[in-house]
Amino acid sequence: MAGNSIGTIFTLTTFGESHGESIGGIIDGCPAGLQLDLEAIQHQLDRRKPGQSEFTTQRQESDIVRFHSGLFEGKTTGTPIGFSIQNKDQRSKDYTNVKETYRPSHADYTYDQKYGFRDYRGDGRSSARETACRVVAGAIAQQFLIAIGIRVYSYVSQVGEISVPDSYQLIPEAIDQHPLRCPDSTTAVHMEAKLNEVKELGDTVGGVISTKILGVPAGLGEPVFDKLHADLGKAMLSINAVKGFEIGSGFRASAMSGSRHNDAFTTSGDSITTTTNNSGGIQGGISNGQVIEFRTAFKPVATIQKEQETINQSGEATKLTVTGRHDPCVVPRAVPIVDAMAALTIFDHYLRNQTTQWRHSRD
Amino acid sequence: MAGNSIGTIFTLTTFGESHGESIGGIIDGCPAGLQLDLEAIQHQLDRRKPGQSEFTTQRQESDIVRFHSGLFEGKTTGTPIGFSIQNKDQRSKDYTNVKETYRPSHADYTYDQKYGFRDYRGDGRSSARETACRVVAGAIAQQFLIAIGIRVYSYVSQVGEISVPDSYQLIPEAIDQHPLRCPDSTTAVHMEAKLNEVKELGDTVGGVISTKILGVPAGLGEPVFDKLHADLGKAMLSINAVKGFEIGSGFRASAMSGSRHNDAFTTSGDSITTTTNNSGGIQGGISNGQVIEFRTAFKPVATIQKEQETINQSGEATKLTVTGRHDPCVVPRAVPIVDAMAALTIFDHYLRNQTTQWRHSRD
Amino acid sequence: MAGNSIGTIFTLTTFGESHGESIGGIIDGCPAGLQLDLEAIQHQLDRRKPGQSEFTTQRQESDIVRFHSGLFEGKTTGTPIGFSIQNKDQRSKDYTNVKETYRPSHADYTYDQKYGFRDYRGDGRSSARETACRVVAGAIAQQFLIAIGIRVYSYVSQVGEISVPDSYQLIPEAIDQHPLRCPDSTTAVHMEAKLNEVKELGDTVGGVISTKILGVPAGLGEPVFDKLHADLGKAMLSINAVKGFEIGSGFRASAMSGSRHNDAFTTSGDSITTTTNNSGGIQGGISNGQVIEFRTAFKPVATIQKEQETINQSGEATKLTVTGRHDPCVVPRAVPIVDAMAALTIFDHYLRNQTTQWRHSRD
Amino acid sequence: MAGNSIGTIFTLTTFGESHGESIGGIIDGCPAGLQLDLEAIQHQLDRRKPGQSEFTTQRQESDIVRFHSGLFEGKTTGTPIGFSIQNKDQRSKDYTNVKETYRPSHADYTYDQKYGFRDYRGDGRSSARETACRVVAGAIAQQFLIAIGIRVYSYVSQVGEISVPDSYQLIPEAIDQHPLRCPDSTTAVHMEAKLNEVKELGDTVGGVISTKILGVPAGLGEPVFDKLHADLGKAMLSINAVKGFEIGSGFRASAMSGSRHNDAFTTSGDSITTTTNNSGGIQGGISNGQVIEFRTAFKPVATIQKEQETINQSGEATKLTVTGRHDPCVVPRAVPIVDAMAALTIFDHYLRNQTTQWRHSRD
Repeated sequence: MAGNSIGTIFTLTTFGESHGESIGGIIDGCPAGLQLDLEAIQHQLDRRKPGQSEFTTQRQESDIVRFHSGLFEGKTTGTPIGFSIQNKDQRSKDYTNVKETYRPSHADYTYDQKYGFRDYRGDGRSSARETACRVVAGAIAQQFLIAIGIRVYSYVSQVGEISVPDSYQLIPEAIDQHPLRCPDSTTAVHMEAKLNEVKELGDTVGGVISTKILGVPAGLGEPVFDKLHADLGKAMLSINAVKGFEIGSGFRASAMSGSRHNDAFTTSGDSITTTTNNSGGIQGGISNGQVIEFRTAFKPVATIQKEQETINQSGEATKLTVTGRHDPCVVPRAVPIVDAMAALTIFDHYLRNQTTQWRHSRD
Repeated sequence: MAGNSIGTIFTLTTFGESHGESIGGIIDGCPAGLQLDLEAIQHQLDRRKPGQSEFTTQRQESDIVRFHSGLFEGKTTGTPIGFSIQNKDQRSKDYTNVKETYRPSHADYTYDQKYGFRDYRGDGRSSARETACRVVAGAIAQQFLIAIGIRVYSYVSQVGEISVPDSYQLIPEAIDQHPLRCPDSTTAVHMEAKLNEVKELGDTVGGVISTKILGVPAGLGEPVFDKLHADLGKAMLSINAVKGFEIGSGFRASAMSGSRHNDAFTTSGDSITTTTNNSGGIQGGISNGQVIEFRTAFKPVATIQKEQETINQSGEATKLTVTGRHDPCVVPRAVPIVDAMAALTIFDHYLRNQTTQWRHSRD
Repeated sequence: MAGNSIGTIFTLTTFGESHGESIGGIIDGCPAGLQLDLEAIQHQLDRRKPGQSEFTTQRQESDIVRFHSGLFEGKTTGTPIGFSIQNKDQRSKDYTNVKETYRPSHADYTYDQKYGFRDYRGDGRSSARETACRVVAGAIAQQFLIAIGIRVYSYVSQVGEISVPDSYQLIPEAIDQHPLRCPDSTTAVHMEAKLNEVKELGDTVGGVISTKILGVPAGLGEPVFDKLHADLGKAMLSINAVKGFEIGSGFRASAMSGSRHNDAFTTSGDSITTTTNNSGGIQGGISNGQVIEFRTAFKPVATIQKEQETINQSGEATKLTVTGRHDPCVVPRAVPIVDAMAALTIFDHYLRNQTTQWRHSRD
Repeated sequence: MAGNSIGTIFTLTTFGESHGESIGGIIDGCPAGLQLDLEAIQHQLDRRKPGQSEFTTQRQESDIVRFHSGLFEGKTTGTPIGFSIQNKDQRSKDYTNVKETYRPSHADYTYDQKYGFRDYRGDGRSSARETACRVVAGAIAQQFLIAIGIRVYSYVSQVGEISVPDSYQLIPEAIDQHPLRCPDSTTAVHMEAKLNEVKELGDTVGGVISTKILGVPAGLGEPVFDKLHADLGKAMLSINAVKGFEIGSGFRASAMSGSRHNDAFTTSGDSITTTTNNSGGIQGGISNGQVIEFRTAFKPVATIQKEQETINQSGEATKLTVTGRHDPCVVPRAVPIVDAMAALTIFDHYLRNQTTQWRHSRD
């Protein structure tokens, strides 16, 4: 109800403020018996952590995840997996500025309105730091997915107005070769230049992350409210700074004709496939065995170095100047978060689908 | 789990196939004591029903909703509201064609894959006829919202490549003045011409519906997974044919700088407002008191009059020709559905928010 | 949230007041592909309906269930099963008496307090008529259970102070041989005499229903909050007039020593069994493969023919005399309801348990 | 789904094995703005902890709860409260015995059957140690309840065959005056003698906890599946070792006549009351403003000092002798757990009931 949980069978509940003692979560409904690769989980966390490159904030958090339960001799036991990540960088700063001033396009004002007051230290619960917990759970979901041949690949496809060409064919291994996580090296160079320019100005810029999910069997997703792309959409829109989501043809579909948009069925060897994939791998809310493809739009980081007009808690006009370093663009670090939310959603639907058909009998 | 319910406090569960005996639903969690205007509910259903104009299918369904429970002397009793709508047009047709052939970009194939077989008559459960039940529940939610000063207005803002100009200021009364539900009369005329052209070709086209929600108080929405726009996004993406959702600046945000995107706070008389609304009325997942604005993209109707290549259940190549009339574009009839899903989402979050702050004491 | 749904994967949501137009429900999460025996469902409804014998109310309801969706050519399709039962006996009676007077140990007063007013015709939503919908859903669950070798048997084991001897060994076929549904014919005769005596006095009496569930495999139930007996207990306590629930040794356990109470493990042929069954087939919240045994206590029917002291809505003392016929004891008709709630609970946990162990791999 | 959460608005999710690094939980949906008394929470934990007296196990756990989030300057913030309790006594023991042998009436066998294997150290997840997390959350719920005048009092009313007389009138202050938590000092003395005798024999004994909840306003509870006593029953039955639950008259109701059982309404000053309380404060699933009264039966502790017959994992007969100290009777330490589960249930229903009546309007 208060919305700190996601999933139906495989669920994640998170807690924690950015400047409290720790953040963490509980994963429930994790099937028993999978040997977990803890380093692979930490690796995903490392992909999200600040300070990876000149394009990410320099806040120093080692971001080491500790597991408290649900594992025995390295295997999932079927009982809840409790985990936490210490907040190392919780030094008592002077928050007077933030405490009384509503930063534009931040959640300061809405938290005050909703709760009557707020923990103003370092964004409190509205900090994107919460997403580290999603990465932990998503990395576990990914290990189950890999075991059944499903792979999630997200990458930066747009920064500002610079985007990967439509003709680009994803090479998964290239995603992490550039710190911006744009696998097309030519585009990555342009993006880098753009970001340097934006940083110079003390400004920030938005971007888009594209995701491809390979190996999803036909049949996942529920046909009415819990359509697979509806749950993917919610998962993505729940990530901080996300403003839009589109599956397959997306917004371009609105300008297309049916004769061009329809994905013709055909056969490829023994298997059924489609000649195009405007559906983005989902028809009627259910996966059709093609690649699931969607795009997630991120707004520019709201914290900028420029002086801004705003008001304080008393409703008086004031000026705000923020110091310290922040990411000029959120998308490179958001790639593992999008991966995580996709993995959580797909794996939960995989488990949900285990009871769709009645295949049981006494013998 | 099977996903035929939506909402947390104010919930809707639906049932029904397009060519079964009836469709219907149960609304649970409806607060006790509101005098319902049943005609207003039927009016919303009438906005959705086929056969309203030359641009909508001519299937004859009177679509009269009947309430079976939960009302007493015209008022909601707090107990579940059961309702149903008869399927009048369920004559036994020859479905041999559809039964064995997978129509491109329909759910025939995915249903077979998911369930092992399917009710092939008239799209079965995947028919958009199911959305009539959403309109009933949404119309009830709207009556509660109206009582607290919240108004939901959706309208057609794009058909094919023709769209309402960015500068257009919504006049709510104009929405239903044109059968296409585009309130900008100049644009509506162009859209009409486009649709006539598309129909002539036996083709279809996509479109966009824009929504504005006025009067939402600050504080609705939950900060992490159940962000207000994440739940709105899921609600919209769960509507048949929807391919994309964006809140406020949406996909345009990805090309913008932070200094331009940030919504500066200011005061207007006694109240706090923002000079721009790129946030679309939601910050940190919580409403900020500004107009909530989002856009929903619909793909072109998959049923076209042109012959198409496809395969049958045995995986053999075949050709498909569909006769009968279908909407050339789904968006005009989808307007009340978008209204309904928006109302369900906002009202549910309104109720959820009633227990956020502790205002109780013994006396 | 308003509590008209039960179950997690296999769910039932009900609607309807006793004197509205109809009652009904939606079953969601029903696996696709089972051929349903509709007559078996109706048979369970017939076991619950009034007017079966001199010991049940003579209200005339044919209680014929109609299915509106979710079945195709007799098989479950995996989509929601909507169903309804007409209220035939909804003639407009004079309810003035009930409208203004709070009947002792009925829900009149609590409904008024909770909702501000109530539909006072024939008990409204608080009528046990609602349980007919549970019987429909439970009968469907039972068909799935039968397919995997699980059988639910409930019977009347106590009426007033007359109870089946502890040594009695259940013969399932004997349950319906006596209208009181007590399979021990000697005890049944005594119960019958007791009920005749109670009826003569215009009074009513309580009773106990015992349940045995055979063939439940080890492993069902979740270890913490959703222990199998906790969910069975809730299911039973949610039935009108139930005041107590006990599993296995139950309240007798509190007077026993551990050395006597512990169920020693042993082997019987190839299978593991226990020499006693004080656990009632459940250990640590999880079924252990033994017979699940529990008892459910029902209070006497609150509607009696005797004049009673009470108050009216204005808080004034008044006397209440109820005319018309009511069951002198609820337990005979409650047997199929207990069966239904047990079947719903066990089948839901069976489906939940399908994803507990990770048995999947790519090949 | 895996059942490690309870509640709908005010929810608790727990994690942790008895011999892992820590146990803990997340409380979600906690209203913002209550100043929490952390010492009062620790006090409830202290009431549950081992080693309090000669009648409880001597395992040394300091059981100090640490809060990680959701509090700011001592007040609840409305965001999730993460907390943990270190497992101090997790020294590596020799578990060979337990690892391979199925202890009678423990969960060893059922865990193996359910999950395929188990964390056999110190009972793993099936340990009653998990209930410490419930006590933390329940103690928070109790602080909200106290603020609205609701008080939960549980006490030991039976140990073995020795029980508090029916005529006993509860004096809440007396509950903790005897280590057995039986407030009737005469009975407590007899219980103490009984326990000494049982300990001498290396045996254990069961018991009953009675609960009274004062100050509950009329109107809490939902009328169908989530009846207030159904949710209380589930909450109690989810506690380790509980075998039975009864509300009000409970099992005695089955032997009573309606004329004796019905609770006559009357007025007491301005307020409506009943002359008897066989309903246990709940009618039709909804609180009626009277004292809520229920009883919870506990089986004898399964761990006894006597040698027992059992089998090992290979199905071979073996003998089991357990050393170390365990509680001869669980009920004294279970009192705060029952209090906690009652508080969680009542407070959740209090929050649920905030949206039952529509009292809102624009002005």
